[in-house]
Amino acid sequence: MYDVNAIRGDFPILSREVNGKPLVYLDNGASAQKPQVVIDAISKAYSEEYSNVHRGLHYLSNLATENYESVRGKLARFLNAGSEDEIVMNSGTTEGINMVAYGWAMPRMEAGDEIVLSVMEHHANIVPWHYLRERQGVVLKWVDVDSTGALDPQKIIDAVSPNTKLVAVTHMSNVLGTKVDIKAVCEGAHSKGVPVLVDGSQAAVHMPVDVQDLDADFYAITGHKLYGPSGSGAIYCKAERMAEMRPFIGGGDMIKEVSKDGVVYNDPPHKFEAGTPGIVQMIGLGVALDYMMGHGMDAIAAHEDSLRDYTVERLGGLNWLQVQGTTPDKGAIFSFTLDGAGHAHDISTILDKKGVAVRAGQHCVGPLMEHMGLNATCRASFGMYNTKEEVDVLVDALELAHDLFA
Amino acid sequence: MYDVNAIRGDFPILSREVNGKPLVYLDNGASAQKPQVVIDAISKAYSEEYSNVHRGLHYLSNLATENYESVRGKLARFLNAGSEDEIVMNSGTTEGINMVAYGWAMPRMEAGDEIVLSVMEHHANIVPWHYLRERQGVVLKWVDVDSTGALDPQKIIDAVSPNTKLVAVTHMSNVLGTKVDIKAVCEGAHSKGVPVLVDGSQAAVHMPVDVQDLDADFYAITGHKLYGPSGSGAIYCKAERMAEMRPFIGGGDMIKEVSKDGVVYNDPPHKFEAGTPGIVQMIGLGVALDYMMGHGMDAIAAHEDSLRDYTVERLGGLNWLQVQGTTPDKGAIFSFTLDGAGHAHDISTILDKKGVAVRAGQHCVGPLMEHMGLNATCRASFGMYNTKEEVDVLVDALELAHDLFA
Repeated sequence: MYDVNAIRGDFPILSREVNGKPLVYLDNGASAQKPQVVIDAISKAYSEEYSNVHRGLHYLSNLATENYESVRGKLARFLNAGSEDEIVMNSGTTEGINMVAYGWAMPRMEAGDEIVLSVMEHHANIVPWHYLRERQGVVLKWVDVDSTGALDPQKIIDAVSPNTKLVAVTHMSNVLGTKVDIKAVCEGAHSKGVPVLVDGSQAAVHMPVDVQDLDADFYAITGHKLYGPSGSGAIYCKAERMAEMRPFIGGGDMIKEVSKDGVVYNDPPHKFEAGTPGIVQMIGLGVALDYMMGHGMDAIAAHEDSLRDYTVERLGGLNWLQVQGTTPDKGAIFSFTLDGAGHAHDISTILDKKGVAVRAGQHCVGPLMEHMGLNATCRASFGMYNTKEEVDVLVDALELAHDLFA
Repeated sequence: MYDVNAIRGDFPILSREVNGKPLVYLDNGASAQKPQVVIDAISKAYSEEYSNVHRGLHYLSNLATENYESVRGKLARFLNAGSEDEIVMNSGTTEGINMVAYGWAMPRMEAGDEIVLSVMEHHANIVPWHYLRERQGVVLKWVDVDSTGALDPQKIIDAVSPNTKLVAVTHMSNVLGTKVDIKAVCEGAHSKGVPVLVDGSQAAVHMPVDVQDLDADFYAITGHKLYGPSGSGAIYCKAERMAEMRPFIGGGDMIKEVSKDGVVYNDPPHKFEAGTPGIVQMIGLGVALDYMMGHGMDAIAAHEDSLRDYTVERLGGLNWLQVQGTTPDKGAIFSFTLDGAGHAHDISTILDKKGVAVRAGQHCVGPLMEHMGLNATCRASFGMYNTKEEVDVLVDALELAHDLFA
């Protein structure tokens, strides 16, 4: 039984007020709040069990290493990776995708080679590929979404040409909520010999992910969206892809030997983890993953689906509001604009006065905004602790905003 | 008045025991412990004031942005940078040096161009330059230290040839404790038109740093060694150098506009900070810097100098122990080996039984180990909270180890 009130009680910030109103936190697409168990784990790690990892032999170093390295197995379970050696721990999706761009794509792509992207990618899954375009003449091929925000996997597959070296696509749009059929994308791309990188920043928060079933080559996730600490994250890399990848960040820990004349690199995945890692953030992320898996990703997804359906119904009753992204199985992410003079920023400011935290702006999706012909939207994005009552508060605040700007 | 007992009371982990003995933490060169104010700041940030930064307009987002961005000014004060716009916030020295290698050096260096390094650099200040050697034929020129571990700045300057594009050198050796006269290195290198990157990982912990007085071009520091959270750090980049540098990690926040066809990058320093940053780690680092500056970097340095002098005296009484690095003004970092069969790892294990945490191994300095003809050493590295009584405990434990292996 999914007890959302008990869950809310686990997140200390949810009991605070903002502008004299109870906080209604609907900015989960940007970052999620943290349960007390995660905060306590961080405090404990620093107060009782802290040391650098890997290189020491003393008690605290061994303890910290054990605590830190155990997170790799939790990440493997969370994504259903075949082996924890396919998990590179890092600071989040941005670093993960950059590692693939610099370490895997850069040395194997030449001028005229192509990367296929959807038009709804986040900048984290765009800018690293623009680097390859700017610096070595790689061509970016964009695949549109339809008017509901749906992405037909066949359109991605059809865009894969003999020059295509990589497909890079999101599993769930951070603006439209659209889910992408990654399994179909991978099957089609692989049939043409092309690997697939998946931006799982949003999807992994809202639904079960099985990288083996999807057959993804790379799957990037971000800890701070997964109710974990800022600066935590990971990327799953299929063993064959990892073997093809040259190291990205250079420094301590990712080497076996360094001399004046050369370097012998460490074995994967450590080869891709340079310097002192985000030790305590990763320990906190492990606790956050345990927290999510303890409630069950299916149960979290079911709860959020019911929030989505209720939000669709309530927003559908506002004939002066347009929702972008209307696929029926989307994630509980609602981007919208209002008729009349109200700019998204002004609307979010009014919502904030009512304690409702939403995001306003471009949401790091320039090409999608251009595709939709919009400069900015408001976005209400839900998490495992949100409730239907909070949807009602959102709708009341939107009605106030509409009245003020009408 | 520097009250080391009061300071010790601020660090909760220092009151714990290890193997039934009071913890004597002498592994500060690897990572430092955290004062309660830092731990509390992290808890508060997550429990009461958490949100993503920069992109929101709601109350919590503004608050988190204010808390996060205020750290840039603290970092500028800590390093005496001319402007906080010369500070790039990141996850530590490893990321900082890689940013310079990929963003500044890579696009401007050709086969045959040279980088001058000292033989006592940490792998974080070696491996990124080996990448340039492996990938584009850059030549690494190594400058030796003398038998005391001293580095003559003139030898660095003499090594700078018309083909040299960069000098990359540490400010304080993580193994020998040697301080390098960076001001002289910069003056000489600049007179030949060559910029200087400084690895300040150790130095910034133990002594006041003034990047303007040193005239360094790049100065990298690591938060977790500065009594701050893991995964925090920064690099100072002189404005002219920053203007020459292309972006490194690509993603959100470091752009002004992204379209299908191109990117307009953000202004420095934000151009070099991609994606959601280590928000709470950086807030914690700000508190750690306030804590250090509150006690005074001169006072911390004076305390550690007296620890160094006492340790020199005590270890000097052990005629079966050799200290590597004997310059008189060195930092309180002691690398040593023992006569007889005891391997550094075995010795550290015996010390650990007495509650004394030291590091054993290569300390991420392959070329220096080769230069010294050693495979491994033990290292006792001191911090602002260590005491002379702890030096005595170390010496007693060393005597036990010597007896066991004699």
